[in-house]
Amino acid sequence: MATVEPESKLFHATYRFTADDIGAAEQIADSICLEQSVEMPRDAVPDHVSSSIAQLLSLFPSSDNLWSATIGYPLHLFDDDPTQFLNVIFGNISLQPGIQLIDLEKDKLHGVLPGPSFGIQGIRELSGVSDRPLSCTALKPVGLSPDELALRAEQFAAGGLDIIKDDHGLADQQSAPFSARVKACVSAIEKGMQKSGKRTLYFPNITTTPNRLMDRYREAADCGADGVLVSAQLCGPAIMKELATIGELPVIAHPSFSGSMVVSHSQGIVAPLYFGTLWRAMGADFIIYPNAMGRFSFTVEQCMDINEHCRQNIEGIKSAFPVPGGGINRDTVPEWMNKYGRDTVFLIGGSLYQHPEGLQFAAAEFQQRLRNT
Amino acid sequence: MATVEPESKLFHATYRFTADDIGAAEQIADSICLEQSVEMPRDAVPDHVSSSIAQLLSLFPSSDNLWSATIGYPLHLFDDDPTQFLNVIFGNISLQPGIQLIDLEKDKLHGVLPGPSFGIQGIRELSGVSDRPLSCTALKPVGLSPDELALRAEQFAAGGLDIIKDDHGLADQQSAPFSARVKACVSAIEKGMQKSGKRTLYFPNITTTPNRLMDRYREAADCGADGVLVSAQLCGPAIMKELATIGELPVIAHPSFSGSMVVSHSQGIVAPLYFGTLWRAMGADFIIYPNAMGRFSFTVEQCMDINEHCRQNIEGIKSAFPVPGGGINRDTVPEWMNKYGRDTVFLIGGSLYQHPEGLQFAAAEFQQRLRNT
Repeated sequence: MATVEPESKLFHATYRFTADDIGAAEQIADSICLEQSVEMPRDAVPDHVSSSIAQLLSLFPSSDNLWSATIGYPLHLFDDDPTQFLNVIFGNISLQPGIQLIDLEKDKLHGVLPGPSFGIQGIRELSGVSDRPLSCTALKPVGLSPDELALRAEQFAAGGLDIIKDDHGLADQQSAPFSARVKACVSAIEKGMQKSGKRTLYFPNITTTPNRLMDRYREAADCGADGVLVSAQLCGPAIMKELATIGELPVIAHPSFSGSMVVSHSQGIVAPLYFGTLWRAMGADFIIYPNAMGRFSFTVEQCMDINEHCRQNIEGIKSAFPVPGGGINRDTVPEWMNKYGRDTVFLIGGSLYQHPEGLQFAAAEFQQRLRNT
Repeated sequence: MATVEPESKLFHATYRFTADDIGAAEQIADSICLEQSVEMPRDAVPDHVSSSIAQLLSLFPSSDNLWSATIGYPLHLFDDDPTQFLNVIFGNISLQPGIQLIDLEKDKLHGVLPGPSFGIQGIRELSGVSDRPLSCTALKPVGLSPDELALRAEQFAAGGLDIIKDDHGLADQQSAPFSARVKACVSAIEKGMQKSGKRTLYFPNITTTPNRLMDRYREAADCGADGVLVSAQLCGPAIMKELATIGELPVIAHPSFSGSMVVSHSQGIVAPLYFGTLWRAMGADFIIYPNAMGRFSFTVEQCMDINEHCRQNIEGIKSAFPVPGGGINRDTVPEWMNKYGRDTVFLIGGSLYQHPEGLQFAAAEFQQRLRNT
């Protein structure tokens, strides 16, 4: 006899799609249930494993032929594995145009995903900044030597920046190999901190193939770096769970290569949920996203929604710092602070490098503006 | 003095985007050059590293305000690293809506990526099938025990199927843990092969987090599996380079979670290039893609274009088998064979499981239809 999984053992995910009428909407919702669980026609599923089939829990119309369907996935499908979790909630149906993942049952996420190991509170303790937004910049450009990058890091630290991260395009190129770069930057930042009298955290970029990434994490930790930067989409988001499970260093997630997941209005995963909830739940302490008004496309409202998703209370999962990057320069920082609030890390690159008075002055001015809120 | 990298040390990538006039198009092309290399304003790049800046090589209009720009990336940016390669060709600009990656300089790919270790010819030798398309099915559904899945595998093998792969939703769930499943299926398929008198290859699904994936690869090899299945987008496409570099087992790439990359007409990466060229160059011997007329959205022309990209001559990179899945059933196999040709693997799931005469008969009938071309 066919069985169904009881509600307590289901995880809810909500999708949005277009359909002309309720009949068509029910058909799409049912096809999601099958595609994302047993992946075969219902009549071909043996009765004694029918409890593995996902269940349609609710279906209602919003506007313009748009429907929202909430589907319950049997928890045992996830196998306590972050790749399999993503596979179930948005694997094959990512290939069906017009289906967008818009919500997840957030308070059950901690059963599958660890969340960040530090979180906003932990990062505030690490940086010694309890009551204001944090500043961040990127070391670049690629092509400079370790000493040249380290000199820039020293100047930024001397100006008092809170966080310095590698540009996400700095890998292990001959111009500045990972090992030499991290050592040079750690020691340069220590010198800079002696001038500023305050803490500056350094996050080298460890993005690479899986078999080398953990070595870079280890080396970053051993060299005295304060955290790591990883391009989550390039490595597969599950890498963040592994890094958070080690938990020795906080993790900045960079959005390179992730755009196709979030820029559409009718498919993929809505950006606040993908960056603010999923990447945070995977284990990111900081989530860099493309800010409004810059080179990218999010509206201010979408950015505020990402911020909210990074910070909101979720059972068993620490909050993460939203890190808007792009579209912010040293002059507009104050107005963005008013919009985004104190639990924000502001990432400025280009406009510090273009400052006529040099990097140390630019960093000091940036810090000054953050303190005056 | 500013320097530029010579043409011989550049790698070409071509993008399509909309712009109202040539001035706007030049601006977008220039912003791609900066964003994807030094990621800072041109005037902030020190002269002595200006050779790291990507170069606009050609820009021409196609139709409807659409422009194509070919950009030359200094090869040293790639760092011989597949994650960094993807980061350079489509990292941050993935976040700018309306920019689509449409072509790559294929004959230079082998400098960065290994291609499949077996390729079409190697797989034909392994399977002993020299002159016809290959058949493939998926073991499912999730929820069955190792013995139940193994019985299905035995019946498929007895019917003479060429390739049996795990469903991509079979992970390490309690119902059929990886280890027990692989052992049971390998030995069941051996029994089935004694009945059919021909070779059947088995590809278990090793998709999981990076720290466990290599253990599953190793275990699959040690248990006598013939290859592995990996959901490339869930693990990050670079995983395929690592598997191909080991080269002990052929790799089937599954497209789960990759839809957002390819389903749009105005952003992401065009599907033939992403699946047929990039995944192949990363190291996939087989590329599963959603076939036309099924639950997904590609047209027959797009599918034929994916097939062509999988098979075309590329310097230093072996060809890969295209594996259309979905939209094919046991009755329509002959017409798809006529369309797609002999260097194709046909993946049929549902309609074999629904066959009234059972799995062995269904497999034998499928094989018969493939032989009659």
